[in-house]
Amino acid sequence: MPETVTADLARFVATHPVEAFPASVRHDAKRAILNLFGSGFGGCRDAAVAAMLAVAGPMSGPRQATVIGRPERLDMLTAAWINAAIANVLDFDDTHLATVIHPTSPIAPALLALAEARAGAGRPVAGLELMHAFALGVEVACRVGNAISPGHYDRGWHITGTCGVLGAAAAVARVLGLAPEQTRWALANAATQAGGLVETLGHHAKSLNPANAARGGLLAALLAEKGLSGPARPLEGARGFLAVMADKVDPGRLTAGLGETWELSLNALKPYPGGVVLHPVIDACLELRRRDGLAADQIERVTVRGNPLLKARADRQVSTGREAQVCLSHTVAVAFLAGRAGVAEYTDECVNDPTVRALGARVVMQVDERVPVEAAGVTVTTRDGRVLEAYVPHARGSLGRPMSDAEVEGKLIDLAAHNAVAVDTRALIEAVWTLDRSPDAARLMRLAAEHGSGH
Amino acid sequence: MPETVTADLARFVATHPVEAFPASVRHDAKRAILNLFGSGFGGCRDAAVAAMLAVAGPMSGPRQATVIGRPERLDMLTAAWINAAIANVLDFDDTHLATVIHPTSPIAPALLALAEARAGAGRPVAGLELMHAFALGVEVACRVGNAISPGHYDRGWHITGTCGVLGAAAAVARVLGLAPEQTRWALANAATQAGGLVETLGHHAKSLNPANAARGGLLAALLAEKGLSGPARPLEGARGFLAVMADKVDPGRLTAGLGETWELSLNALKPYPGGVVLHPVIDACLELRRRDGLAADQIERVTVRGNPLLKARADRQVSTGREAQVCLSHTVAVAFLAGRAGVAEYTDECVNDPTVRALGARVVMQVDERVPVEAAGVTVTTRDGRVLEAYVPHARGSLGRPMSDAEVEGKLIDLAAHNAVAVDTRALIEAVWTLDRSPDAARLMRLAAEHGSGH
Repeated sequence: MPETVTADLARFVATHPVEAFPASVRHDAKRAILNLFGSGFGGCRDAAVAAMLAVAGPMSGPRQATVIGRPERLDMLTAAWINAAIANVLDFDDTHLATVIHPTSPIAPALLALAEARAGAGRPVAGLELMHAFALGVEVACRVGNAISPGHYDRGWHITGTCGVLGAAAAVARVLGLAPEQTRWALANAATQAGGLVETLGHHAKSLNPANAARGGLLAALLAEKGLSGPARPLEGARGFLAVMADKVDPGRLTAGLGETWELSLNALKPYPGGVVLHPVIDACLELRRRDGLAADQIERVTVRGNPLLKARADRQVSTGREAQVCLSHTVAVAFLAGRAGVAEYTDECVNDPTVRALGARVVMQVDERVPVEAAGVTVTTRDGRVLEAYVPHARGSLGRPMSDAEVEGKLIDLAAHNAVAVDTRALIEAVWTLDRSPDAARLMRLAAEHGSGH
Repeated sequence: MPETVTADLARFVATHPVEAFPASVRHDAKRAILNLFGSGFGGCRDAAVAAMLAVAGPMSGPRQATVIGRPERLDMLTAAWINAAIANVLDFDDTHLATVIHPTSPIAPALLALAEARAGAGRPVAGLELMHAFALGVEVACRVGNAISPGHYDRGWHITGTCGVLGAAAAVARVLGLAPEQTRWALANAATQAGGLVETLGHHAKSLNPANAARGGLLAALLAEKGLSGPARPLEGARGFLAVMADKVDPGRLTAGLGETWELSLNALKPYPGGVVLHPVIDACLELRRRDGLAADQIERVTVRGNPLLKARADRQVSTGREAQVCLSHTVAVAFLAGRAGVAEYTDECVNDPTVRALGARVVMQVDERVPVEAAGVTVTTRDGRVLEAYVPHARGSLGRPMSDAEVEGKLIDLAAHNAVAVDTRALIEAVWTLDRSPDAARLMRLAAEHGSGH
């Protein structure tokens, strides 16, 4: 294990010049932030969020920061906590596919909460500065994730939590202007807070993982600023993060090519709230429906041909909307019946709709190892004996076929129409696209409040 | 792995009758709580605590709870957080020797903060109820610890953090009156927050581990009360706490004999702030000093004979007071020079005192595998050629020679005299001994504030 991993990452975070922040990565940062608000508007009324707010709201300190899509105001630590949960709760946030880290949910809310507190104190954080710090934080989280994947997640670590806290700490340390040594302390303070179990996925408890990562990372950097020091090698030490939380580490992934490649460029945005393995299936169903004018009541049988991972993850019976997000038969049924697979198609009511259940019962999964994870084939046999087929080589939202900027905007507008109707989505979208010219990044959060205004 | 571990523990916590809480364990609980305040008065002015308060204090919500030995008031989550750090920062808190969990620091502050919030809302928690919940929480934390020791700690998990959060959640769940199912959720919400790295020991960052355990456990139970549900098997599931955080689990230790044996009875209180491996050495030095009237300037050489663990942990050069708590030569030197090894003997100034350094340089360690960990021999060769020896088979504070109740009281009084001179220690001690008859457990915290009063 290289002995200077933490020091190298800390120096990179503290000293990388904003002038060297590539335009394409800047654009990726804007897309990720747009998607944060989109997925946040989708999640802001969730039951887990409501329970978390019911406990933490009355315990909040100064009302310095916004809750996405809602009227409450909270102290910055609590706001970072709840906004990360809100953005991630539907699993509709972004995915760094190589690690399955959802990078934006734990990192951006910490930065934005700090920016609001700063703005309130008359020291706003410039938009470009925040975007740069965000990219640096994502870089730290995903590089650590790369070095310990896939074993770390396979063992049962919810990697969005464990690596997210490091990313949030790094990003906030940059905005605070911490020196390399203090940034190292911030990473130490974050590493010792890392946690989150895969066992909680599909349950309310999972929301604590991104939430604690955002809050813990913000806290870690604020504590380092006040002198709370840590060990010199919190990541690579004998009892540090890597030795303790990974059974196998690829140290080359941690620091090689820092500043030359950007993990944010490998970040995928989801067009559907369901699991990514289901995305090519949805695309194929929608294509059949549109291209062949196929109506649900004409369908005799649906055969889905896909990668073994599709079967392992999604070929199962479910009874709740949350579980249905990773259920093949439900997803196929709603794609044909509703012509979409959005948030409204993953409610408990929809799962228990007899029409949906009846169509779902006619879905068969066929494993084909030649089909990649981001591809799928769907064959429909109609009641009148026709056989219709569609094959999708790259799902919408995959790296091979990323969502367009317009689609990301559309996702935000759609989701706001569900749960955050009072938000001026046009103003918010415009503010994100021009964030690098804004003197005050906190304006985004003011626009994202339930009755938001940019002033 | 038994499939009902979490359910069994949750049912025990939720339903164990207070009438079945043995008198001897009740007494152990009082001793542990006395020791909490003693170690807390020792730690309440520490630099790590100051940094943590500087960040969290201004972010605190309603001022509903006390900070031990200090004037601040904080919301209950933040108070639990800081009081756990205060009680543990000097490593002067109690030790469940079989696991090296410090059980009281993460668990009791969570309960006491809740009791204060309840008292403020006109719904006080009775002393006996709090003590019972405390014992139940210690039982959960230490049983999980037993099942994964020694591998879990050896790998690098700071077990006070990882198991402490489970204990705090269980204890608080009991006081909240949660049903078995909600208690299971509380344990799930706690398990997914478990963390803390041994790499941070000796650094400020380590204080986050007990602090987050206390706060996280309190939060976990409060969230369960509001309906934040979790997986059915957060401990024993395939991606649950045990599979993820331990390489080897002894499942029999988790639930066998629940309610028949009590881990709190195996909890040791420390007479000295240094590492427990040093305790028999201190006892031997003090015995030589007292019995033989040995003055420091007569000493030519000190030979310490001890267990290999003593050498592994403590035979090293140090430069700070914090490090000196696990330094043999420094500890021997101050024991002879000052006739004690208390908080004042582990300051940076004391470590760098030339007289202390000179005597420390004349200390030699001799490994003897026949000497148990809780024993040590010290041989002094004097300048005039005498050879004086003392052998201590059971250190003060070990299970073989526990501190007397009067010694525990004396420790509290001594430490308050350092950092909390305004506390009425007599009233506080009396309140702890009579806690099981008190209608309001929060009175302890009011007495432990800087200018405390029990009213």
